[in-house]
Formats: sequence, C-alpha cells, structure tokens
Amino acid sequence: MLEKLFNPKAVAIIGASQTEGKVGHALLKNMIEEGFEGGLYAVNPKVGEIMGVKCYPDVKSLPDGIDLAVIAIPAKVVPQTIEDCGSRGIGAAVVISAGFKEVGKEGKELEKKLESAAMLSGVRVLGPNCLGFINTMNRVNASFAADHPEKGDIAVISQSGALCTAIIDWSLKHHIGFSKLISMGNKTDLDEELLIEALGNDKESKVIVGYLEDIRNGPHFIRTAEKVTRQKPIILIKAGTSAAGATAASSHTGSIAGAQMAYECAFNSSGVLQAGSLETLFDYAQAFSYQPLPKGDRIVIVTNAGGPGIMATDAVEHSGLSFAKLSDATKDKLRSFLSSAANVNNPVDILGDAPAETYRKALDAVLADDGVDGLVVLLTPQAMIDVAKTAEAVIEVSRKYNKPTMASFIGAKRVAHGIEMLQKNGIPHYPTPERAVDAMKQMVEYMKWRAKPKKVIRRFPVNSTKVDRIINLNRKHQQYNVGEQDSKAVLSAYGFTVPQCSLARSAQDAVSAASAIGYPVVMKISSPDVIHKSDAGGVKVGLRGPSEVRDAFELMIKRVKEVVPDARIHGVLIQEMVSDGREIIIGMTRDPQFGPMLMFGLGGIYVEVLKDVSFQLAPLTSEAALQMILGTKTYNLLKGVRGEKSVDMQLVTECIQRISQLSMDFPDIQELDINPLKISSEFSRAVAVDARIRISK
Amino acid sequence: MLEKLFNPKAVAIIGASQTEGKVGHALLKNMIEEGFEGGLYAVNPKVGEIMGVKCYPDVKSLPDGIDLAVIAIPAKVVPQTIEDCGSRGIGAAVVISAGFKEVGKEGKELEKKLESAAMLSGVRVLGPNCLGFINTMNRVNASFAADHPEKGDIAVISQSGALCTAIIDWSLKHHIGFSKLISMGNKTDLDEELLIEALGNDKESKVIVGYLEDIRNGPHFIRTAEKVTRQKPIILIKAGTSAAGATAASSHTGSIAGAQMAYECAFNSSGVLQAGSLETLFDYAQAFSYQPLPKGDRIVIVTNAGGPGIMATDAVEHSGLSFAKLSDATKDKLRSFLSSAANVNNPVDILGDAPAETYRKALDAVLADDGVDGLVVLLTPQAMIDVAKTAEAVIEVSRKYNKPTMASFIGAKRVAHGIEMLQKNGIPHYPTPERAVDAMKQMVEYMKWRAKPKKVIRRFPVNSTKVDRIINLNRKHQQYNVGEQDSKAVLSAYGFTVPQCSLARSAQDAVSAASAIGYPVVMKISSPDVIHKSDAGGVKVGLRGPSEVRDAFELMIKRVKEVVPDARIHGVLIQEMVSDGREIIIGMTRDPQFGPMLMFGLGGIYVEVLKDVSFQLAPLTSEAALQMILGTKTYNLLKGVRGEKSVDMQLVTECIQRISQLSMDFPDIQELDINPLKISSEFSRAVAVDARIRISK
Repeated sequence: MLEKLFNPKAVAIIGASQTEGKVGHALLKNMIEEGFEGGLYAVNPKVGEIMGVKCYPDVKSLPDGIDLAVIAIPAKVVPQTIEDCGSRGIGAAVVISAGFKEVGKEGKELEKKLESAAMLSGVRVLGPNCLGFINTMNRVNASFAADHPEKGDIAVISQSGALCTAIIDWSLKHHIGFSKLISMGNKTDLDEELLIEALGNDKESKVIVGYLEDIRNGPHFIRTAEKVTRQKPIILIKAGTSAAGATAASSHTGSIAGAQMAYECAFNSSGVLQAGSLETLFDYAQAFSYQPLPKGDRIVIVTNAGGPGIMATDAVEHSGLSFAKLSDATKDKLRSFLSSAANVNNPVDILGDAPAETYRKALDAVLADDGVDGLVVLLTPQAMIDVAKTAEAVIEVSRKYNKPTMASFIGAKRVAHGIEMLQKNGIPHYPTPERAVDAMKQMVEYMKWRAKPKKVIRRFPVNSTKVDRIINLNRKHQQYNVGEQDSKAVLSAYGFTVPQCSLARSAQDAVSAASAIGYPVVMKISSPDVIHKSDAGGVKVGLRGPSEVRDAFELMIKRVKEVVPDARIHGVLIQEMVSDGREIIIGMTRDPQFGPMLMFGLGGIYVEVLKDVSFQLAPLTSEAALQMILGTKTYNLLKGVRGEKSVDMQLVTECIQRISQLSMDFPDIQELDINPLKISSEFSRAVAVDARIRISK
Repeated sequence: MLEKLFNPKAVAIIGASQTEGKVGHALLKNMIEEGFEGGLYAVNPKVGEIMGVKCYPDVKSLPDGIDLAVIAIPAKVVPQTIEDCGSRGIGAAVVISAGFKEVGKEGKELEKKLESAAMLSGVRVLGPNCLGFINTMNRVNASFAADHPEKGDIAVISQSGALCTAIIDWSLKHHIGFSKLISMGNKTDLDEELLIEALGNDKESKVIVGYLEDIRNGPHFIRTAEKVTRQKPIILIKAGTSAAGATAASSHTGSIAGAQMAYECAFNSSGVLQAGSLETLFDYAQAFSYQPLPKGDRIVIVTNAGGPGIMATDAVEHSGLSFAKLSDATKDKLRSFLSSAANVNNPVDILGDAPAETYRKALDAVLADDGVDGLVVLLTPQAMIDVAKTAEAVIEVSRKYNKPTMASFIGAKRVAHGIEMLQKNGIPHYPTPERAVDAMKQMVEYMKWRAKPKKVIRRFPVNSTKVDRIINLNRKHQQYNVGEQDSKAVLSAYGFTVPQCSLARSAQDAVSAASAIGYPVVMKISSPDVIHKSDAGGVKVGLRGPSEVRDAFELMIKRVKEVVPDARIHGVLIQEMVSDGREIIIGMTRDPQFGPMLMFGLGGIYVEVLKDVSFQLAPLTSEAALQMILGTKTYNLLKGVRGEKSVDMQLVTECIQRISQLSMDFPDIQELDINPLKISSEFSRAVAVDARIRISK
C-alpha cells in the first residue's frame, strides 16, 4: 500500500529551484543529500539542470517510470499538475504548496479542485500545505526539513509540519531514529486512517506515533486503528482538546459528554495510547521501540539511593502497576554480594557506593526472578561511581532477558555519557523515575490490550419494526422529542421492562387507571413541550388512594400551565410505582464524529450534579459494557453496601448492550436517556421507570 | 538564626583525612576549593597538616573562635565530640557520619545519645548521616559533594543526600544556581521546620525547594510554613505517598482519609506548593527564581507554529488559567507588522518564518496589553530562523515588563544555544509548552495564596463544660465508642440542632415516646456494641402509628440479638423524623502527624461508595470551610438543582467551623461523624440526624 509514495523507483521535484533558501531548492537538495538511489528529475521551465539534476520544462515532458512527484509550485496550478501526473502514470504526489483551505474561501475552492483531481487521476496525494515526508530506509527525503533524521523503527505522522521540524531536531540529540516521518498537511487525500493502515503493514515500523488535531472519519479510524494496534502500538497526541463543541443538548447524556470524551472513547476502544505532550509521546515511543513487551505488570526497582527508590515506588503504586515480590532465592542471591545495610526487598537498594559490577549482579538476580515482569533501574551520580561502566552493565544484562528495562540516571553532566550509551544501545532513558514508570505502565496497558479476545458484538432478538414505526410516526408529527410513552414503547421493543402505565385525560380517568394498576402510583404530565417534568411540577410519586390521585391531577394540570403556558397537554400518565431497586442511568448521545456514545452511571435527579458516569462508543462488547460499570463508583453501589445483595451485573451489561444495539440500528435516534433504570437485586429485573428519546429532524 | 551554621567565622573538619577518596578528605578539599575565607582547621591525631591546613589532635586543643564543626568520625564517638564542641563554644556541627538510627536498634540508641548531647551542649546539629551543606554565598562547602554548584537564589533542603548529588549535577548543565543546599540526613536536631524558618529569614534565598520523606512535627511545620510562604514560595516533593497508614477506622471519615490526605491538607493550608517529581520541582523553582509574580491569571501565548500553540492552549484551559483577551489596539498593532495569514488573536501565531525582530515586536505588543498577566512564548526551529537572536529578543522585551515570561523552544540541537541564553538570562525554559504553562499555573496559585487575608479563626460560644463531663463519664465507663445520644448531646453543646429523641426500654415506652414527639418517628437501636446500626437491622424510619412502633420495637430487639448476639442493648431510641433537607456528612479524624482532619461531603448511607468529600485540617477559617464545600460536587446539590432553593451556605460553613472548634478543644475526640446532617433550605436549619464519636483510650 502506498508503495509508489514510500518506495518510488524515480522521483520528480516539480518546482525545483536554483535559489538557495527556496523550498524548491531544499526539496531537491534533501533528496540528493539523503542519498536517494533511484531516478531523480526536476521540473523547471527556465533552467537546464540544478545541482546536477536534469530539468524538464513540464510534467508532460518528463521521462517514463516516475512514481512520485514532489510539488512546490503556486497553489492555483497544482490541481492541473496532479492531473498531468496522473496521465503520465505518476502514482503519488506530495503537495508542499500552501494556499489551500488554510487561507479562506478561495483556498477552499482550490482544495476541492485538488481533491477531485486526485480522485479522477488516481494519484495519491499527501498534503497540501505540508513539510513532506522522509523514508529513512530507502532514502527518500521528499521534504524541505532542515535536518536528516537517523534510521529507526518509529513512524511519525503529524498534522503540524513545524512539529516535525522540532521532532527531528530533538531526535538527533537523543539518538531516536525514525522509519518514516510524515507531515500530513491539510489531509486532502491521505489522512491519518490511510497512513496508519499503511504503516501498520510497514515492516520497518515497529511503533506508530502521531500528532493529530482532528480525525477525518471517526468510525473508519477506529476500525483501522483497532486492526493495527493488534500488530503494533499507536501513540497519539490529540490536540485541541479544549475546543469542546458546546452544542445544546436536551439529555443528561448529551450535556455531560463533551467532544473530547468521544476521542477518549475512540482511542480506548481501539487500543490507541494517548500522550499528553511531545515529551511523553517519545517517552512511550522509545520504550516500545527499544524494549520487549512485558508479560505481566510486576515491576522491580533497583537503585543506588533511597530517595529515588521511594519516588519510583510511589509512581508504581499510583500508576496501578504491581510491585514485584522477589523470591527467597533471589533475595539470598542478592544478600550474597550486597552489604548488610543494602535492601534486598523491592525496591532493591544496592547503596550509593555500588560499582558497576554490583549493578550487574543485582540486575541479573532480579531479572532472572520469575516473579518479575519489568525492571526500572535508577542511578544517582555519587562520587565513586563509574557511570559509563554501569550503563554498560545495564545494557548487557538487559539483553540477556526478554523483559523490558527502563533506566533513569538522575542528574546531567556526570551521567551524560552513560545516558548516551543507554540510548544508543536500546535502553530507554528517562530523566526521572516517574517518567520511566509511566512508560512501563503504557507497555503493560498495551500488552493487556493485545491479550484481549477479538471483539464480539452480541445481537439480541428485538422488534425493530415496531421502533421503526414509532420513529416514523413521531417524525411525521414533527415530534422530535419523543414522548415518555413512545420512548418506553421503543425500549420495550428492545427487551426492556417498563412499568404499567396508562394515559388519563381527566381526573376520573386517572382514578380508574390507578385502581386498575394498583396503588401506590406515580403521576406524570404528558406533554411534548415539557422536557424536564419535575421542574415544572409535573411529577408526583407515592399516591396512595383515589382522592390523592384526583387532587394530584388537578393541581398538576394547573401548575404545568402556569410554568409552561403554551404547553400542549395530552393528559397525565398513571404509572405503577416501582419502589424497589437501585437507580442508574443508561444514555446515548450521537457524536458527530464518532457516532453513538453510550453513558452509564448513577441515576436519579442528581445525575448531572454527581456525574458518576462512564462512556463508551457503540457498538460494544459485553466486556466493554462491564468496563463501563467498573469505571464508576456506582459499581460499588450495585455490588451492594452495608449487607445489601449485589444486583445481577450480567443484567446491567445486557441493558447497556441493548441500547448499543438500538443506537446502531437507528441512526435517527440522536439522544436517549433511561433515568432511572431501576435495578432490583431481589427480582433480578431492570425497569425503565422514565425515558426520553430525541430523534433527528 | 543558625548564623554559626551558615555563616561561620571559622570551621574545623573533625576527622579530616589525608587519603583521597575518603569522606574526611573530600570535606577539607571542598572547603578549600570553594574558597572559604574564614579560619579553617582540621582534627586528626595522626598528622600535622593536610593540604596546608593545620591539624589538631582533638577538639579540646583547637583554637578559639570556631563556629562550625564538620564531623566525619566513627558514629560511636560522635555524641562525646558534640559535647566537646559545646564546651569549646563551637555553636554548630554537621554530622556526616552514618551508623545511627538508619542501621537498627544500636544505632537508634546512639542517635538518642547524639540528640541529648546536642540539647545539653547547645550545639545545633545538622545530620547525622548526611551529605552536609553548601552556602554558595559565603563559600562554605561543608559537604562531600563532588561538584560545586553555581550561585543563585534557590535554597534546597533534602532528606536524601544522593538526591543532592543528582541535583547539583543536573543544575550545572541547566545553569541553575543555589543560595544554600542542605542535606538533612536523619534530622536529629535540625529538621525541615527549623531550616525552612531559617531560610525564610535568609535574604539570599528567594525560593525554598525541598525533598521530604516525612515531617517531624505537623502543627509546627504548618505554622512555620504558613509564615514563610507569606514571604517566599516553598515547593516540596513529599515522597513515600504510597505508604498510606492503613489504620482500622470506625468512622466514615477515618476510613476515607488516608495518611497522604493529611499531607495534602497541610501543604494546602500553609501555602506550600507540591511537585510530583524532581523535574517539576525545578520547573517551578526556576519560574519563581527568575520571574516576577503575575498580577492575575490571564495568559497570552505567542508562537511561530500552530501545533504547539494549540497544545499550549489546551494546557492553559486544563490548568484553569484564563486566556488573555487582547485589546483591539494590541491586535491593530500586531496587524501592522504581521502578514495577513498570521493570527492576531490569542494564541498569537506569527508564522514559521518570523524573524527575531517580529518576535520582538509581537512580544512587546502583547506584554504592553493591560489584559495580559503572563506570557508563554513558543518557538519551533524552522529553517530560516535565527534562534539565538530570537532568544535575545525574548530576554530584552521580557525585562521591560513586570510580568512573568516562560519560554519553550521545542527541539534540541538547533535550539540548544538559544535555550542556554534564556537560562543564563533569567527566562525559565521548558522543553514543552505544557510544562511552561504548568509553571505559570504555580505562580498564579502562589500569587493567590499571598493575596489571601490573614487567617482568622472564629470562635463560637459553646458549652464545653458539658462536653467535658460527657467525655469523662464515657471514659470512666470505658465507653470509647460514645453512643448516639451522648454524641448528639456533645453536638448540641456545640450549637447543633438535634432531633427530639428519647430512649424507650419497652414497646409501651416506645409508643408513649412516639406520641409525645409526634408521628412519623424514626427508631434506632441503642447499644454500645452495634456501630453500624442499619447493617444489624437496628434502624427503622417513617413509623406512622402506635401499632407500627410496637411491632418495630419487638422485631428490632430480636434481629439485633441475632446479628450481634452479645450486644448490650440499652433500648430503642425514638426520634423525631426529619424529612426535610439535603443530606451531608461532616466528620473528623485525628491524624497522628497533623491533628484533626475535617471532612465535608455528600451524606447518607452511600458516603463511602460515592466519596464525594473534601478535607481540611483544623482549625480553619470560614473561607477554608467554604473552600471545602466548593471542592465537592455536593456543592451543586446544596445550591439546588432543578429549581430547588439553595441552602444557606453560611450555615454549612458554620457547622464545619463548629466541628473544627470542638476538635481543637477536645484532643480526646479521635473520630467523629455527623451523618446525615440534614440541611433544610426552607427553614435554614441544620439537624444532626445521626452522629458518632470515638474517644481515645
């Protein structure tokens, strides 16, 4: 995939320039300096050759057999040039030129033209408005970057060209190498999804990292990322997190979930690791690039000073990793060469004067322990220490074992040489123990993700025809806020239990309905114009007899009319009172980017106050549904406190999965709240006591 | 204070050695190399002089006028040596020697001897088991550190000597200078409190940073820190956070609060800033050392690339800082020299090719804006940029304004020189925008702390005699879990409203009591042996008539006897049913280190499930009490949701303050829960519906 882009046999620089400092000059220079071994041509109508490369007046006159065009010419002639490339059999193009959608309306038009030119001609286009890309492996430097990065197995994609520049500059100092470094620019054709897919298949890339400001197609991205993360880790920075789209939402779910939440869910559900800054991005990338994945989460710390050992211990516990318990045999081994003042328990403290040989023996002992899955080795530069020799010992011992090793040599001047040795020899180094532990944590998380079974989405037998009918009827009446009765009918069709209920149009009606259902009852106003019923005095619970029902009816109609004067009132719902059970909420809001986002959490009237909720994108597995429950404090409540019986968790996960199915089946449903869904531990049933659905216009 | 330690006229190295590599050699060498200008002597019975310094056989034979002894001799002779120092008028000693409490029982004994020697002789002792200290200002290097740190205005205290070594090594590369660097060792005499007090008075120290593993005296520390932070910032790492003392607690408050929470509260209430790693510690220290405090929290970002600008924007919003809104005049000024593709709104993007002069003008324009309190300036090393000149521009413009500037030049090789220039010229530099913003956030937090009025603790008129009597009576009966009635009597004496209540010993009693109080009533078992009453079937609410009361009485006695067979049962409490109000919890648990720790939060039976709580140490101000409320989601509940009236917040803060006063007045009270405390918005009253007190044995 994208073979012509990444591994072209011949390349043409269109808009190559003689003038130093110009982009068209830098592009040609970079290709030459990188040592590209294929054919190299230039297009420039004014000169015969540049830097020894023959120039052609236009694309049409270029020789055959060119796979890749790198384009740095005025924006307005780019679309035509792409077409020309297509007709010459040039399969891929990097458009460096700016002046497209980033500069306003005219640019947007031009970008549309570029898009259709790419589509019609079949030329795959990277950019426009980008730095280009570098493939270090076959020496294609189709960029105007000022430096040449080292070879390595980390692939980078970035929506910011300037960041690529900074990343290269930074990598040279820390001896981080890249397989491919790709600036995506405006992503007219090739976007994060296509590039991640290609890099997933790229044997030279072991880990994919990226900087994204948006994602073009949510569901596609998730599907691809999910596939790729089974093979290799993807680590992303998602910037622009603060620009949460504050759309007016009428449901609890909609108002609690922000745009950022959808990204979180998307990354979680596809195994993508998130980094909070460039620093953490490469902290993680180094770990994955250099070290094997851990088999478990039991971490050992070896240090020559107490303080850093404690800091690392704190970090391990806060991260949720486990603290390795060393075997007696290992401790005996350690005791055999350590002084009595040393600590042979994890964190192993081999004391400040430990020479490299002691480090070597100690690391060997702990890594050989079957109870250890990963090692964090710390050093402070005390006077008598040979840091370089210690680095050597770390490198050598680490290679003997198939367990990840992270190092933190704390300081700067005295440890500099040792750190450089570590970095050049595949030991990821971190300036603090905390960052080392954080990187280890990511490896463990990724290992757990890889170990998960393939997603199986359960489908329940449901009555979707009925839901279809209800939705169509509501749309026909322009009833976009579906009433409580219809909402419950939808849920009922999807296997939910709903309380007995009937609509009363008069006080007398109400009394008869209540007698038929049985006391006590709940009464609720039925009006398409009253969304928050309690606020408007439209809810009354625990009515115990005919006179209470009659009074409540009259008062309710009166009050609602006062609060919402123009409300169309259908009557009052008389409903069975479900007194038993713990109150939860299950909801859904449709994210414009990623589709249905499900919410689970503590129900009741304080949902938005306490916000004890968790989110996942639909469709989800039963494991993911269970994860949603475990991710809240409400879980403890469902398990039962103070001697209460636990509710049936299976039942709750099924409820979530049914809503997942409903949201996938009916894209028209924009928002949905079941609140409260009462879960009874005694009868093992879930009753949708109240519900609300909003459909799209 | 500690004048003889930090600014000695003459110094003696006791245990000075001729042999290179020995600590006693390094100590003398460091004093000489540092260039100490006072008298320098050595004690070594075997030689006449070392490195030109005259040796004396023992302390007694040393000349007069020595202020400071630096001791590196076997541990067992140290206590006697301290006494000798005292009798020779040597006022301060640094004990480098190890072999004290860190090596077990014998060492502990020895350390006790050292402690009393110090006390009796009046010699102030730093250490033992430490690296020593360095005062760069008057060139006292009483340490065996391998390097000499630069001069600066950051003071360091550390409970880990190895960390001091690492810090010095690191500081040399980043051009961070120190006023004093102190390794505290075992803290036998001089501890964090005394050192922080001394550094607070030290004109050469602008900011105090430290690494602590424990605090010797909680309340003293808080008092001193609170005083010092009014003058200069204190930034601490508290390590060992994961070793939470899991003591068995019988109250909600006790079981939710961990040992770490007390440290958090202590730091919060004394204005101490906390750092999570060495990196963040010095990220913050540099900001305070180099830059003026901001006047407000409105931050502007200037960048030459979009990506980093977005990352900085995210960081600003997540940190809770405000985004500066530039004035029209400023924007016009920016427009006058920026190209039309640039962004003149915050974050100001001056584009990738911006030369130093454009940076200069842009920074000048935004810093002159009255709506800007602080600046974060970003740079990515794009090809045409002169990084050094840009650094110069940042330095020059920043000096013109009394507003903090933080820089992040992203990369490594190409930006190295610029970064060095920034660091040498008082502009704190951070590898990522996120870290720059975090440092800015700390400055704003500290500025807010300094702006707070002095603490005023309100005292309420209370009946403490009554409480005294109740506690004494309970202790006399070895009744350490004070019963509900007595607990409520204590609260009542401190101004709380409690429900009407009386104890019934028979079913008939119960009915009479209920009639007197008025239906509905609540019934609760009264037994010193039943702590969690609901769990044992010992609570029944909403009893509406005589027959219900009679049945409940009999059933309750029967059930409690089944669940807690040996329970001594005093009878059943018949209590007014307080149906109105929102349920909160106010509690207290006494931290062994810091004293009474107050808790506020969501009440009811789900306290420990939902854990929506906040903590503060007593005694507290009404502002701090309000902060406790604002720190929970329960606040929104009290404010009222869905059209509910807000409760009287003043009333709630008073309740917290009354419990603060009670905890300070009665150190015997170990734990206390009022749960629920029902706050009614209608009647503006707070009723302690249930309460529990545990007193010390």
